[in-house]
Amino acid sequence: MPVHLSPPNPADIFPVLGVQIGIAQAGVKKPGKDDLTVFLMDEGVSIGGVFTKNRFKAAPVQICESVLTNTNSNVRAFVINTGNANAGTGAVGLQHAKLVCAALADLLKVSEDQILPFSTGVIMEPLPFEKIIKALPDALKNLSTDSWVKAAYSIMTTDTVAKAFSKRVTLSGQVVTITGIAKGAGMIHPNMATMLGFLATDACIAPELLKALALELANVSFNRITVDGDTSTNDSFLVMATHKASHPNITNWNTDDAKLLLSALKEVAKNLAQAIVRDAEGATKFITLNIQGGQTLEECKKVALAIAHSPLVKTAFFASDPNLGRILAAVGYAGIEDLDQSKIELFLDNVHVATQGSRHPSYKEEDGQRVMKQEEIEVSVQLGRGSSNDTFWTCDLSHEYVSINADYRS
Amino acid sequence: MPVHLSPPNPADIFPVLGVQIGIAQAGVKKPGKDDLTVFLMDEGVSIGGVFTKNRFKAAPVQICESVLTNTNSNVRAFVINTGNANAGTGAVGLQHAKLVCAALADLLKVSEDQILPFSTGVIMEPLPFEKIIKALPDALKNLSTDSWVKAAYSIMTTDTVAKAFSKRVTLSGQVVTITGIAKGAGMIHPNMATMLGFLATDACIAPELLKALALELANVSFNRITVDGDTSTNDSFLVMATHKASHPNITNWNTDDAKLLLSALKEVAKNLAQAIVRDAEGATKFITLNIQGGQTLEECKKVALAIAHSPLVKTAFFASDPNLGRILAAVGYAGIEDLDQSKIELFLDNVHVATQGSRHPSYKEEDGQRVMKQEEIEVSVQLGRGSSNDTFWTCDLSHEYVSINADYRS
Repeated sequence: MPVHLSPPNPADIFPVLGVQIGIAQAGVKKPGKDDLTVFLMDEGVSIGGVFTKNRFKAAPVQICESVLTNTNSNVRAFVINTGNANAGTGAVGLQHAKLVCAALADLLKVSEDQILPFSTGVIMEPLPFEKIIKALPDALKNLSTDSWVKAAYSIMTTDTVAKAFSKRVTLSGQVVTITGIAKGAGMIHPNMATMLGFLATDACIAPELLKALALELANVSFNRITVDGDTSTNDSFLVMATHKASHPNITNWNTDDAKLLLSALKEVAKNLAQAIVRDAEGATKFITLNIQGGQTLEECKKVALAIAHSPLVKTAFFASDPNLGRILAAVGYAGIEDLDQSKIELFLDNVHVATQGSRHPSYKEEDGQRVMKQEEIEVSVQLGRGSSNDTFWTCDLSHEYVSINADYRS
Repeated sequence: MPVHLSPPNPADIFPVLGVQIGIAQAGVKKPGKDDLTVFLMDEGVSIGGVFTKNRFKAAPVQICESVLTNTNSNVRAFVINTGNANAGTGAVGLQHAKLVCAALADLLKVSEDQILPFSTGVIMEPLPFEKIIKALPDALKNLSTDSWVKAAYSIMTTDTVAKAFSKRVTLSGQVVTITGIAKGAGMIHPNMATMLGFLATDACIAPELLKALALELANVSFNRITVDGDTSTNDSFLVMATHKASHPNITNWNTDDAKLLLSALKEVAKNLAQAIVRDAEGATKFITLNIQGGQTLEECKKVALAIAHSPLVKTAFFASDPNLGRILAAVGYAGIEDLDQSKIELFLDNVHVATQGSRHPSYKEEDGQRVMKQEEIEVSVQLGRGSSNDTFWTCDLSHEYVSINADYRS
């Protein structure tokens, strides 16, 4: 059961003018499961993307990066399969991904480099590209602007809940829509997660802003979550602006319109990222880590990740056991060489657990216990070294995580 | 059940002349459990130590480091309690540890800075120093050279099997004994583990060699194991030479005697370290990671630790599931920026799983499966970048790990 996360209500997920989605069953996953999704964008869409930093980049990621480095790229469609990551598949995998793109390009009467491929699933198995190619016409037959929620379901792997969010804002009197979908749920780590994320808006955003926009959105959302510290081979987050709304074109982020839009885009991206943590494999707790008083943001991140990746901290959260010295230990090994333990303050929600690096005199076990039993917990660590503050989100480590990942392929 | 690890046979664990051990029940752990151990060394012992790199050093670690930086230190005894780590306890914790040392010094008629304290157990709880001090006379009453195995039991926390190894070698016609004990079993990570380790020899080794010797022994043993990536606040590894044997004094490591002795010391240290992994919390598999062809040893270590800490890799080993793409993914995110995935070779024992970064054409799932089912598995990764090779040891991640750590204090 995910932590405080409901399936999307189709009435709350708005279509984005200029984006159609078609879905089919290619048989990559078990029969009867949607596993193929095609996005078709109208001419004139601007696209930006952020991809995994894993050096074992999957074949589709290599193609996306290569297409998008061409600033004149004129991408028109995405083809997304689940059930197979097409990673660790070498030159043959690259060829398979290209065959899929070529087949879709052929059907859409566009060129092969106008298609971006995405895959998620098992690593190091050959992509069943023939099945995917065969199912492409089925996907195109049901293209619709209303299929965002269905697409959110069709890209799921071990996710238990589909992830889709929408938001509308008014720019210069014109309503603009933002809609996004994403999938988790394991191999989740900043830079980025095993994650696919697709976010579209009908706003008019100058094409040259899209790449930096995708990175900025990832930095406040997908790059601040971690489930298991495994950086996937396939992480991809794409942002599209279809230019269908009729407000003045956004060419920088300093206008009131631009700020309003950016804030809404961040909200949708952040909701998607947090949903991934809430639905993380086996998660029973949603944990917000506030790291304050670092000398640098990098330092805050080190501390947050040390806490977030510590199996001892994560199992203590799972057990609702306020064994909070484990958090201090993680702070201590986070890699800040000149950390002064006597300056560390630790809070669990508003409970002051440790002061000057040791148990707070007024801290009572039952206060810690009360907070640990909650499904949403805020951990605040003050480093007392500077003025940098940062926030990350993570979850606990449960029996269910082990079960899911021990049995993933069976 | 630990992986291929039997309790020590007292007949195989030899006393070391010049070292007596006394054990008592101080009531820090549950009543009826040995939790206090005193080592008393004869005058003239040389001692070297290596301690945790966690910045949240426990109070006893701070004292040990401070005493041992004095090259004229004349340490005569260790006092070791389990059940409480005396970490995250600030200035008060330091004072408690000093009170324990002073009490033992008083009983032994030595000075306070001739005592080294060690603690292991829960973090951020006040040390019940009064209970410990009260039990010191009991420990001194049963001082004996034959209590190594009993001591191995008395320092255990979540360990299921006591860890003690001995070896004898003949130097210039004189038999020399090496005996060591250690405890795991969680918070185990290079630099070092939650680990206490005590190794003694009656050999004559020049005092100025001991500090570097302790580091060298740790580097081939305790610094090559990782269970959960958590670096503890209390890790301490002490090496003692009592100078009771009558071979010529060892003043450098270049003589035949010295090489023979060093090799035996390394063997005992390595056996202790491997025993910690074999008895790691919830471990069902013992995994040797050979990383070959790195440009540097540091690079090999990064790759080994990425694999060893990946919960996805660890759960796949637990499930005997040859989902080996997860290993490639871990290699990919290990942090080698210019890694060329097309040069990676992956072997599971002698099964060639991946070549040139993708599935080996002759690799069959059943071959991978067969190896994954073993209790001892060797993973070899060739990076194809240089001539550095290194070896680490780790274990899988099981339901039992979660259970042990979720219920540690209950």
